[in-house]
Amino acid sequence: MLDPQLAAWRERSGAALAAALPALDVEPRALHAAMRHAVLLGGKRMRPLLVHASGALFDADPVALDAPAVAIELIHAYSLVHDDLPAMDDDNLRRGQPTVHVAFDEATAILAGDALQSLAFAVLADAPVDADTRVELLRTLATAAGSTGMCGGQALDLGATGNGGTLTVAELEHLHRLKTGALIRAAVRMGASCGNAGSTDLARLDDYADALGLAFQVRDDILDVEGDSATLGKTAGKDAAQDKATFPALIGMQASRDRLAELNQAMADALAPFGERAGALRALGRLAVERDR
Amino acid sequence: MLDPQLAAWRERSGAALAAALPALDVEPRALHAAMRHAVLLGGKRMRPLLVHASGALFDADPVALDAPAVAIELIHAYSLVHDDLPAMDDDNLRRGQPTVHVAFDEATAILAGDALQSLAFAVLADAPVDADTRVELLRTLATAAGSTGMCGGQALDLGATGNGGTLTVAELEHLHRLKTGALIRAAVRMGASCGNAGSTDLARLDDYADALGLAFQVRDDILDVEGDSATLGKTAGKDAAQDKATFPALIGMQASRDRLAELNQAMADALAPFGERAGALRALGRLAVERDR
Repeated sequence: MLDPQLAAWRERSGAALAAALPALDVEPRALHAAMRHAVLLGGKRMRPLLVHASGALFDADPVALDAPAVAIELIHAYSLVHDDLPAMDDDNLRRGQPTVHVAFDEATAILAGDALQSLAFAVLADAPVDADTRVELLRTLATAAGSTGMCGGQALDLGATGNGGTLTVAELEHLHRLKTGALIRAAVRMGASCGNAGSTDLARLDDYADALGLAFQVRDDILDVEGDSATLGKTAGKDAAQDKATFPALIGMQASRDRLAELNQAMADALAPFGERAGALRALGRLAVERDR
Repeated sequence: MLDPQLAAWRERSGAALAAALPALDVEPRALHAAMRHAVLLGGKRMRPLLVHASGALFDADPVALDAPAVAIELIHAYSLVHDDLPAMDDDNLRRGQPTVHVAFDEATAILAGDALQSLAFAVLADAPVDADTRVELLRTLATAAGSTGMCGGQALDLGATGNGGTLTVAELEHLHRLKTGALIRAAVRMGASCGNAGSTDLARLDDYADALGLAFQVRDDILDVEGDSATLGKTAGKDAAQDKATFPALIGMQASRDRLAELNQAMADALAPFGERAGALRALGRLAVERDR
């Protein structure tokens, strides 16, 4: 059962995404249909929720937060479209739906991903905040998405796939700090940038986001072993089949669960100084750790 | 023989690109090598030259112009990497070099393109101009690159490939106004945005850029028929082999040359009010119309 505040932000973000994406009757129609397919057919909206939860902690205007919430989900969605391509993870199922290159074709999937990335930055350029804050949002997102952030993590992941057992845990955690963690940190920072956050608070939020990003990935790896495809909405058991570097493969299931508990504690410690006001961020931490899909 | 001013801007842009790209020893190394391969092994640098030529017309600081010059070339380079992929145009040769997916692999090519796009926006976020101008540059580039600009044109082009004869000339020109024209217009506008351009001047430059973008494409289509792969640095005769929509295929070679002359005149008319100060933009127009690769 989702916290009512999180449920409201999730609905708000879904509506903002639908409004930001070009309509189905705008040319080129197949491209816009593919972009909407990639973004609007489900998804946990974890990153938009983090933007709103982090922004709310600093009294940011929810209308201002819609822009970074939309932008970061567009980046996340584009990365999934490209990750699912035959040359990458070659996945046919995502959020219980055919992946974009299956529902359309590979060329359209490549272009839809590309255009979703452009749209993310166009949305931020029109965010209803002052120009300095807009530039800060754009810098944060562009850096997090790039070759020393999300794309870099994906490149490290590809390099590790097929020889999953040869990474150290430190290398695996570094990979995920880029691949998943960079956007999670960016979501939390962008929310804070729209409010009146000071540098001490930003450092605490970085610690929280860092632990959350890793916890999310450890849980993902555990679910790939324990879950079933119907609940997950994507193909289960894929990591082992591809000899991917995962926490269970490197350290076993029990140590993976222990690591998850440690990360949970790190989130609690980072949020403690904010007291009750950080309730939404705590709830998102629980979601990452306890989710079954 | 390139105009000395254009040659100087080209060298300047090449150096700025090399400095903006992560070094080869930065992890992930294969990804950064692929990004540098995509950008630094040649290229006419038409778009960076347009940024500098347009900015110079309005006394913009060349140091400020480096950022949009780099950013637009990064977007152009990423689009070539993705266009060359097997699922798109499936090309092995670009600028006389193996394409990125041939020199590396498909997954790395997809990621390198993605990361080049992110880097373009990161570079603009740090441009040494005031925040309002930075936001304007970011908005211009993000919009031009997206689904109603460059990516949209590429989607229309894919839709037309294999039934090249069924487009009208108006549809073909619309396709190119998006696929090539959107970035060319953005280059000229971004240069002007860094200077003190007024709305009348901006409208004239839009007309110039619109004619230039189309002329560039008509010349490209003619070269694909007339040129040889060694001079072009890419595979000649590919358009006809793929039954692509091209000007020669739709209206024949003579009418294509006539259209090129018309577009040349449109450029001259648009630049006439600027007098001698538009010499660099005129030289770039000649390059587009007269080039043999």
